Amino acid sequence: MENELELKWRRIQQAMRQEEADGCLLTMNMNLYYVSGQVFNGYFYLPAEGRPYWFVKRLTIPETNQVHVIRKPEQIPDFFRDLNLAMPRKLLLEADELSYNEYIRLQHVFRAEATGNASALIRHIRMIKTPWEIEQMRISARKHEAVYREIPACYRPGMRDIELQIEIEKRMRVHGSLGYFRAFGSNMDIFMGSILAGENAEVPSPFDFALGGSGIDASCPLGANGTPLKEGTAIMVDMAGNYTAYMTDMTRVFSVGHLTELAYRAHQTALLIESEIENIARPGTPCAELYEIAAKITESQRLGAYFMGTKQQAKFVGHGIGIQINELPVLTPRSKDMLEPNMVFALEPKYVIPGIGAVGIENSFLVTETGLEKLPHFTEDIIQLDK
Amino acid sequence: MENELELKWRRIQQAMRQEEADGCLLTMNMNLYYVSGQVFNGYFYLPAEGRPYWFVKRLTIPETNQVHVIRKPEQIPDFFRDLNLAMPRKLLLEADELSYNEYIRLQHVFRAEATGNASALIRHIRMIKTPWEIEQMRISARKHEAVYREIPACYRPGMRDIELQIEIEKRMRVHGSLGYFRAFGSNMDIFMGSILAGENAEVPSPFDFALGGSGIDASCPLGANGTPLKEGTAIMVDMAGNYTAYMTDMTRVFSVGHLTELAYRAHQTALLIESEIENIARPGTPCAELYEIAAKITESQRLGAYFMGTKQQAKFVGHGIGIQINELPVLTPRSKDMLEPNMVFALEPKYVIPGIGAVGIENSFLVTETGLEKLPHFTEDIIQLDK
Repeated sequence: MENELELKWRRIQQAMRQEEADGCLLTMNMNLYYVSGQVFNGYFYLPAEGRPYWFVKRLTIPETNQVHVIRKPEQIPDFFRDLNLAMPRKLLLEADELSYNEYIRLQHVFRAEATGNASALIRHIRMIKTPWEIEQMRISARKHEAVYREIPACYRPGMRDIELQIEIEKRMRVHGSLGYFRAFGSNMDIFMGSILAGENAEVPSPFDFALGGSGIDASCPLGANGTPLKEGTAIMVDMAGNYTAYMTDMTRVFSVGHLTELAYRAHQTALLIESEIENIARPGTPCAELYEIAAKITESQRLGAYFMGTKQQAKFVGHGIGIQINELPVLTPRSKDMLEPNMVFALEPKYVIPGIGAVGIENSFLVTETGLEKLPHFTEDIIQLDK
Repeated sequence: MENELELKWRRIQQAMRQEEADGCLLTMNMNLYYVSGQVFNGYFYLPAEGRPYWFVKRLTIPETNQVHVIRKPEQIPDFFRDLNLAMPRKLLLEADELSYNEYIRLQHVFRAEATGNASALIRHIRMIKTPWEIEQMRISARKHEAVYREIPACYRPGMRDIELQIEIEKRMRVHGSLGYFRAFGSNMDIFMGSILAGENAEVPSPFDFALGGSGIDASCPLGANGTPLKEGTAIMVDMAGNYTAYMTDMTRVFSVGHLTELAYRAHQTALLIESEIENIARPGTPCAELYEIAAKITESQRLGAYFMGTKQQAKFVGHGIGIQINELPVLTPRSKDMLEPNMVFALEPKYVIPGIGAVGIENSFLVTETGLEKLPHFTEDIIQLDK
């Protein structure tokens, strides 16, 4: 783990020097986990050169020369003096995550001449996974597949979508799901993933997820809403792959009875998009091109009205994944990013078929030196549950 | 629901006028839910006088004279002009919740002479519950009790703490738990609640929860960690009461076999604290006094070394609850708050007994005109699971 962390610190320091930043202070849980291998209450400080320091409010990390106990961040400058550590002239703070008041407070504590955005820098670093992180995602993928294999056993005739979801959640937890579903940004509320069936698949989401669904309460407007799983319904299962701190993302479609011709054709189109992208993508491929391939194939099949929703259509076809479900890069028409080795992203061409539900596919892909490697393996056809 | 919302708007406007604020802009999910009855993507704007406006990025609320669609907040001033709505001189923004960058962006959009803290204002308003909110909490309490009644049926000999938790989670969901567990602040990660058994109860938490536990992964350091539920173990169950958007909080202790004399005595002391506080608390009682009662009774029983933890002791004995688990007031020795009618708080005197686990009690109380009303009802004795 020490090597793993040192690798991350070096990458961050390299990026800091490019921004001429002398210090980077992190305090958001997932950034702390990324650079420390654990969550704690306090601050992680990395100078542009040398080893990092931990200033902890609760001693859940053993005290060492690098780990110091504080009650409040205002004590940090005293430690800098005692440690002969220069105060940073340019300090990076988590500007996209820290609350305004906390940011202002830390700015005041450090009195730096300039501040920069640690959120943006760390998100960029986190985009390229380390060998250990990739291993964690492989472990998640194996368990993700194992749970999906059990989905047909969760089904009972007459069920509602939420009842199926509860059965799947239980099996996820038994297989080691950590439960907590982590997203970047404050407006992305989701619990363990989403199941969409029937007309509920058309309900727009207030969040930046691919699809919506009205949920079971106005305070959690996403996913299953109690839709009966009746004959002719497509059931899209997009439940979390949070079996390690590093998530995989994976969607499969199930049906009760037979779906319409349109639904099957749209599903096959999604599979075609996936295989086209698997064929062409490699380091250097623009992310925007992946979206364009999806849009073009969709157009050629005249399925544009159903692509990524009907009433509201998401203008993306995939996204980076890691500690959070919505990491970089994002596969949108306007993306300026190119694929790089050791990126991991979810590709999710999906179609919403009015009255039926959602169809399509989602898999997690690792970008290798020569192309893509699919992480979770499980049949991609629509699985009929009542057969 | 309209009356409910109008009541909230009036309370906010009254508080705004006291701060001489002309406008209040909200965008955090739970604040939007509080003032709109639903979560959406966008902004809620309340002038100090008159009706509110909604500026929505996704049309999940029907468009009306008060609801307008925007792509980005920079368009809001154009709407103000068209609507003949004065731009605020003093604008309240969610300074404890909005990210620094989002706050700065909104400050720039509105170019207000002054800004104030909408987070603090709304948290203060939310402390006093409306009749509808209290009704929601009563519904949560009934379901919370129902699930706890099923806990003995979840137990099987040889189980580990996490296995018991998974069984309870399933029953929670079947009884309508919304799943999502909402806390104020970015550093409070918890999934569905916590179960603490044996030595794991002594593990300090990096978060501001009453007790800790190491959890099943370093990325989620809280609660059950796989501890075997062997003879002589106390199992503290503090699982969420999130059956409506308004949560109740409730802890009960179970055992495998018999516990030590000390554990039973500490448990009885917690019940004594609860009943003493039930006897004296009424509108006007200082919150600090509730903590002092708990501390004094603990001292008289010479249980100070176990109170609210051992290695790390939480300096509080309860907290407000509502949409989030950690609302105001907080029952600490330094609190300046007094009880007011229609506050709802969780009272949780707890003791950690080394090698055994945690004992004590937690209930949710409504402050009435004359005293306290306990919301969840369920036996408060330690329940032996293997009898």
